[in-house]
Amino acid sequence: MTAPESTVIRGGLVITASDELHADVLVQGGRVAALAAHRSAAAEALTAERTIDATGRYVIPGGVDAHTHMDFPFGGTFSSDDFETGTRAAAWGGTTTVVDFAVQTKGRALREGLDLWHAKAEGKCAVDYAFHMIMSDVNQSTLKEMDGLVEEGVTSFKLFTAYPGVFYSDDGQIFRAMQRAGLNGGLIMVHAENGLAIDVLVEQALQRGETDPRHHGEVRKALLEAEATHRVIRLAQVAGAPVYVVHVSAQEAVAELVRARDEGLAVFGETCPQYLFLSADNLAEPDFEGAKYVCSTPLRPREHQAALWRSLRTGDLQVVSTDHCPFCFQGQKELGRGDFSKIPNGMPGVENRMDLLHQAVVDGHLTRRRWIEVACAAPARMFGLYPKKGTIAPGADADIVLYDPGAEQTISARTHHMNVDYSAYEGKRITGRVDKVLSRGVVIVEDGQYTGRAGHGWYTPRANCQYPY
Amino acid sequence: MTAPESTVIRGGLVITASDELHADVLVQGGRVAALAAHRSAAAEALTAERTIDATGRYVIPGGVDAHTHMDFPFGGTFSSDDFETGTRAAAWGGTTTVVDFAVQTKGRALREGLDLWHAKAEGKCAVDYAFHMIMSDVNQSTLKEMDGLVEEGVTSFKLFTAYPGVFYSDDGQIFRAMQRAGLNGGLIMVHAENGLAIDVLVEQALQRGETDPRHHGEVRKALLEAEATHRVIRLAQVAGAPVYVVHVSAQEAVAELVRARDEGLAVFGETCPQYLFLSADNLAEPDFEGAKYVCSTPLRPREHQAALWRSLRTGDLQVVSTDHCPFCFQGQKELGRGDFSKIPNGMPGVENRMDLLHQAVVDGHLTRRRWIEVACAAPARMFGLYPKKGTIAPGADADIVLYDPGAEQTISARTHHMNVDYSAYEGKRITGRVDKVLSRGVVIVEDGQYTGRAGHGWYTPRANCQYPY
Amino acid sequence: MTAPESTVIRGGLVITASDELHADVLVQGGRVAALAAHRSAAAEALTAERTIDATGRYVIPGGVDAHTHMDFPFGGTFSSDDFETGTRAAAWGGTTTVVDFAVQTKGRALREGLDLWHAKAEGKCAVDYAFHMIMSDVNQSTLKEMDGLVEEGVTSFKLFTAYPGVFYSDDGQIFRAMQRAGLNGGLIMVHAENGLAIDVLVEQALQRGETDPRHHGEVRKALLEAEATHRVIRLAQVAGAPVYVVHVSAQEAVAELVRARDEGLAVFGETCPQYLFLSADNLAEPDFEGAKYVCSTPLRPREHQAALWRSLRTGDLQVVSTDHCPFCFQGQKELGRGDFSKIPNGMPGVENRMDLLHQAVVDGHLTRRRWIEVACAAPARMFGLYPKKGTIAPGADADIVLYDPGAEQTISARTHHMNVDYSAYEGKRITGRVDKVLSRGVVIVEDGQYTGRAGHGWYTPRANCQYPY
Amino acid sequence: MTAPESTVIRGGLVITASDELHADVLVQGGRVAALAAHRSAAAEALTAERTIDATGRYVIPGGVDAHTHMDFPFGGTFSSDDFETGTRAAAWGGTTTVVDFAVQTKGRALREGLDLWHAKAEGKCAVDYAFHMIMSDVNQSTLKEMDGLVEEGVTSFKLFTAYPGVFYSDDGQIFRAMQRAGLNGGLIMVHAENGLAIDVLVEQALQRGETDPRHHGEVRKALLEAEATHRVIRLAQVAGAPVYVVHVSAQEAVAELVRARDEGLAVFGETCPQYLFLSADNLAEPDFEGAKYVCSTPLRPREHQAALWRSLRTGDLQVVSTDHCPFCFQGQKELGRGDFSKIPNGMPGVENRMDLLHQAVVDGHLTRRRWIEVACAAPARMFGLYPKKGTIAPGADADIVLYDPGAEQTISARTHHMNVDYSAYEGKRITGRVDKVLSRGVVIVEDGQYTGRAGHGWYTPRANCQYPY
Repeated sequence: MTAPESTVIRGGLVITASDELHADVLVQGGRVAALAAHRSAAAEALTAERTIDATGRYVIPGGVDAHTHMDFPFGGTFSSDDFETGTRAAAWGGTTTVVDFAVQTKGRALREGLDLWHAKAEGKCAVDYAFHMIMSDVNQSTLKEMDGLVEEGVTSFKLFTAYPGVFYSDDGQIFRAMQRAGLNGGLIMVHAENGLAIDVLVEQALQRGETDPRHHGEVRKALLEAEATHRVIRLAQVAGAPVYVVHVSAQEAVAELVRARDEGLAVFGETCPQYLFLSADNLAEPDFEGAKYVCSTPLRPREHQAALWRSLRTGDLQVVSTDHCPFCFQGQKELGRGDFSKIPNGMPGVENRMDLLHQAVVDGHLTRRRWIEVACAAPARMFGLYPKKGTIAPGADADIVLYDPGAEQTISARTHHMNVDYSAYEGKRITGRVDKVLSRGVVIVEDGQYTGRAGHGWYTPRANCQYPY
Repeated sequence: MTAPESTVIRGGLVITASDELHADVLVQGGRVAALAAHRSAAAEALTAERTIDATGRYVIPGGVDAHTHMDFPFGGTFSSDDFETGTRAAAWGGTTTVVDFAVQTKGRALREGLDLWHAKAEGKCAVDYAFHMIMSDVNQSTLKEMDGLVEEGVTSFKLFTAYPGVFYSDDGQIFRAMQRAGLNGGLIMVHAENGLAIDVLVEQALQRGETDPRHHGEVRKALLEAEATHRVIRLAQVAGAPVYVVHVSAQEAVAELVRARDEGLAVFGETCPQYLFLSADNLAEPDFEGAKYVCSTPLRPREHQAALWRSLRTGDLQVVSTDHCPFCFQGQKELGRGDFSKIPNGMPGVENRMDLLHQAVVDGHLTRRRWIEVACAAPARMFGLYPKKGTIAPGADADIVLYDPGAEQTISARTHHMNVDYSAYEGKRITGRVDKVLSRGVVIVEDGQYTGRAGHGWYTPRANCQYPY
Repeated sequence: MTAPESTVIRGGLVITASDELHADVLVQGGRVAALAAHRSAAAEALTAERTIDATGRYVIPGGVDAHTHMDFPFGGTFSSDDFETGTRAAAWGGTTTVVDFAVQTKGRALREGLDLWHAKAEGKCAVDYAFHMIMSDVNQSTLKEMDGLVEEGVTSFKLFTAYPGVFYSDDGQIFRAMQRAGLNGGLIMVHAENGLAIDVLVEQALQRGETDPRHHGEVRKALLEAEATHRVIRLAQVAGAPVYVVHVSAQEAVAELVRARDEGLAVFGETCPQYLFLSADNLAEPDFEGAKYVCSTPLRPREHQAALWRSLRTGDLQVVSTDHCPFCFQGQKELGRGDFSKIPNGMPGVENRMDLLHQAVVDGHLTRRRWIEVACAAPARMFGLYPKKGTIAPGADADIVLYDPGAEQTISARTHHMNVDYSAYEGKRITGRVDKVLSRGVVIVEDGQYTGRAGHGWYTPRANCQYPY
Repeated sequence: MTAPESTVIRGGLVITASDELHADVLVQGGRVAALAAHRSAAAEALTAERTIDATGRYVIPGGVDAHTHMDFPFGGTFSSDDFETGTRAAAWGGTTTVVDFAVQTKGRALREGLDLWHAKAEGKCAVDYAFHMIMSDVNQSTLKEMDGLVEEGVTSFKLFTAYPGVFYSDDGQIFRAMQRAGLNGGLIMVHAENGLAIDVLVEQALQRGETDPRHHGEVRKALLEAEATHRVIRLAQVAGAPVYVVHVSAQEAVAELVRARDEGLAVFGETCPQYLFLSADNLAEPDFEGAKYVCSTPLRPREHQAALWRSLRTGDLQVVSTDHCPFCFQGQKELGRGDFSKIPNGMPGVENRMDLLHQAVVDGHLTRRRWIEVACAAPARMFGLYPKKGTIAPGADADIVLYDPGAEQTISARTHHMNVDYSAYEGKRITGRVDKVLSRGVVIVEDGQYTGRAGHGWYTPRANCQYPY
């Protein structure tokens, strides 16, 4: 399992966010050294210790999943994937970088939370990783800490307008953090839902005896996502800072992003596969099965999907992440039987993202280049990892996936590698499959085998957001 | 002046629409053969007959100017650049592909016009060229001809809502052409101004004795550009075809494009450097000097520029072309002394585009990647020339410009190479200058010398529009 | 049938566009002389030759129908109501003023058309009437004529972007007429559909053998109504004139009006009962029954109705007229069997409008005051008849309807009074019914009897549009 | 000063929200008994103990000022007009009804606050009055109290997104109050500014030494008014309740109202004369004079006025109130020398509103009818006082103003009757002046004399909002 010093990948179709090339790729020392036109003299001249035949394969950058929650405390339990199982599943799914969320404990320093997350991840990861910082407590002290974190490569900070009493920050706090980010180059990420109003609706629903998982979707109104989205956009505009809205699911929220971008504001948005492929119908599945699909923002009625796809095409949404935050149905999701508000919020997905988005290519929602852009290049740029990650170009890390576009597979908990007892996409047929995965030149998935190791993945400090605005 | 079989360009910063790389570029047989990370072993292994040192230079794709009018009949005269002088000037300015407009004569076949334009260009061009087709007469016969032209590589057709009695088509004709394009894969381009209303305003202005060039700008109302823009968007929507609006200048027209794109429509737009850098103030220059700036759509008041820059950033405008259509001040522009409506419409610019847009990078309007996108990659994709043109990637034509980003120059008619007796940007200081130009591997500009030759440029049939929608 | 010199109407609920009053109304000399609070001493003091008991009745202004086509030539036939039968039916339905369209014959003077329409109406009408002028031929001569017509009380002019070869004017003509209206105070009305594009679709549908009435609705696309609506709004904006769009039916057209009004433009719109109560489903009725519902703009799918109702509530649409233009099913509509494009365009309705809009009150779409505003006050103001018509106030003409809000009726061709062999609303149950109708103080409908006479109705010259803008 | 039992007002032009009539008005028992066409036999028959000659005068409904703060505690002081001086000044200015704000003390019952305000007003008022209720503390107890208050005629409740720690309610509280109002028919009024973000900006400005009054305007950003406006609109939409936004001043906030109304939402807005006639320039007046113009929302740059006027014309803003809340320059405004945040927020205006809005008629901003609508009829309807107040019609209270449209006056603190030592409109020339004022038939202002008395004004319970939505 020692990496050869050099590898050449021949005969595939190299796809990046902007190009589709019949090119051979030379990897040396864990990086892309050269690309040469397939069958050209220059290609013939490329020599390496190892040759991989990519005939009939796409050769794509490894996926960058900018939103995962490994080993994440929520609702009295922890997400069921730790950094070892979660990043291994990512590798299986063609994702070679994850950006996870370190959590500040209220009343403690950001640093303390960050240290804890470093300890959680250290020596465990199958692929490279980095951290965002969740700020649970914006105050003069944590505002000052932000500057240092940006310096050392934790360049994005997540705040919540939801979850009062837990992660919630009020508008004054959010505004102060945005101002600081405007100065130190950090990027504020926001979970945008009006949590105060939602909590009223939750209380009222439970009082009416509406305890099933589907009520989770009904109380978290699309308009309350849109409201908070608009609010953080305007706060960011006044603060003079960019803002990135995580897990956008409602068409009304998309409309706010579109409006802001039409005005030329530095406003960015991410959606997730669950919002593109699943819907409120899943939340309504009987026998508490709907609990499997409980996450926030919630799944929306099917008709919201069109706006998400359209905005991924037009660029008004830039990134597809997973918000991977798995909880087992048994023992975890079940905490919310009889009270949907006690169901841990989150779904598994880190392993499925690249496949589901390739299915979107097959279905005609995205071009191949846009697939790579939303899944690899844009998250890398958004979070300061480009061109190290997110592309195949001389100098970039050799995080490369050979993807078989014609293979057929069926997603199932029986076959997936995430540490969770169900799949949100159980039985879904996918055209396309990951064939081989290289992480910094090392083959970590091959021939249906995981050939990597815990600890291969490195912590990767990040530059500031490189997205043009 | 024979091209060496192979060249390696070392040490520059390669910029494409998506990447910025310190990479060496190997050119073989007129194409890009390989890119290798600078100073890597792979780069050292690249060998060629000739080495170009690009230290301190940008290495960028040659520009693609998708809107030129060489040897173009208008208002009783012809544009002053023919294909020889015009494409040579293009080369000087770092543009290595032009798409010019063949013109159908009313009552004659498209083919006849196309043949004439082939004859005009054949053996004359310094750089590669292709043709759009202006349809002056949409009827059953010309509609049928469209299919054949698409087949042979003339895949875009220009129609006019302006110039009644000359190029004007009515909405029924435009609609029929759009329907046909929807079937045969062609792309309809439209000059969008409400020519019928404008002609009323022209007549009334002249009756009031308003004959100066500035009245040209005043009668061609921004709202009448916006109206026609909206109209062709809706006609295209009903016809089920994409539409490309040429030379967008009014912020109200931009707003219509933005609205359509927010709806997910396949609507595209181009603007030109004159709308980004000049304004109605120029049209008002005394002593008939304003005539130098007479083109349609007209220059707008300065405040329209913000919307154009913003839309170039957000992608709601995709392309910057020149609408290069020069007429000498003496003897040509002067035809309109005493009657602005007789001033030939058009301005020179094919030589200045790459520099002006680099200045926009310096000024902070665009990133370097977006510069290459709007000037090279997007026009190539829009008009079916990608990846042959518009990028630097293995397999692409070796149309490459070495650009010196720190050089200083002053634009002037005394030093430019276009065959026209004035410059629209006379005296404008630019940071950045073309250093060397390669066309299919042949150096055609070097050390302040034109080293190319008439006839080096090839006619290049085009594929259909490759823009994702 | 001689009118008493004075009448007092006691005990009803007087409803105007702004007030609901329990008041007694004194009529003297054909006009409203006084209103007094019911049962007040002042009311007791009102004396008249005749007393009408309005207990349990609404006392409302007579309806003003600003869009009728009596004796109208179309498609080789004439609308089946002439001024005698049509205005008598209007009276039955509680409408006491109609504004009909005089038609210019192409190549002849406006005056000639106006004279002809005066001759058609003279001595025939049951209720007061006035004329708009259809301009079929905008040229220097007819533009001049406009001024005189405005002077004499024909203050509105209708132009068509539809019906090429018949009523169609091109954008230059429309623009010139708007400019003239901007100067002489006239109001330009427009039938807004892109007729040139529609004619292409008609031709293609017929070629495909799609000859049934429902295809009439399918080829006249909502987007082509919206496009023309936007176009005339912008032309009017540039011309500096108000514009009134007739028979708005598509939600996309409504959106254009809303947008323009949000910008503060003097843009007005009318819809008709058929667009509020009927839909494309009717056009699809089998056995050529759909022909009964053929009018232009066409009936739209049911989901368009919400936008119409909403805009009537918000004031973005101001007027509900009928576009009454009846053609008998037998012998007239049948001209289009086998070719929907030969079906005479038009529907009966002048008798049904007040009832249908009262039903809208019952259904919760409109308040009672808004009912009176859209059916009486707004059309009177829009077309210069206020306060003579459209309200019940001292000094106004005593055109008064006693309306029984609790009566039940069923609309049917068997019982209606229009000269047409079908009803578009056959079998529709209505709550509410006209009980008595006074025209200038004369009772013309009472106890289920028509007590008026042909020639009672006077020609009423109009002032300019009084709508605030 | 005993009122005659009956009065007839002859010869004036009666103007209501919908009509302009040459009519005589008979008043009996404090109410309008009859209107009769001037010089008609019916008019001649009107007899009364007293006749007022209104020749050359407008006869208009007394103004309804729906937003005053008499004897109002703010920033450690009280507004300088109590109910006696304030309502007397209102009478002088042609306003015959005020709706003032009772204030709940945090931690106490609504009832207690209401009782206190009744005590403040009882026996003091020159004109009729009613109360809104400010909720400082939304909780289960006060939510229940709302129902009772609606029952007894306090049908509107004001909440604040501004003033954290004072009147501020969080989004959950606002949402609960809206839900309750949705059930009990109350109307929620909101002071919409993002107070949490503003407080951050206030703190930062003071830290930078920006202490002058103009900084009050600069920290209270237009975008933060727009944000809160949007937020309360969406909260109301989800709650299923209407919402009324007080003192709208920013064009961006207007845009949010317009957007909501285009969607058909029950959203209403008020602006005030200070936003229509004054601007941020006043806040920047030297020598602390700017303090005179400190109110919240703040005065905006002059260019915001166009959107306010336009929306008053289109009906997207319905009401012009004064937010009358005077503080003397000496001793009160001066509390904020050296710290703009300590300047009591508020301006005098109850006496000037009708005149300023008549000036708007003269200036062409509003029609006469719209003047009466925004100043009399709409506030009466909005707050359940119609048709008792806000119109001149049989049965309405005889609150009538004779207005001399041609008189000239100059506004000045030397001549006004408000108990405050400056005028915000000092030196402003006005065309038009109140000539006589009747309150329920009693002349209270005449011949430049106040002929009313404290205690004439009655408390007037209100019905629910009658605005159509």
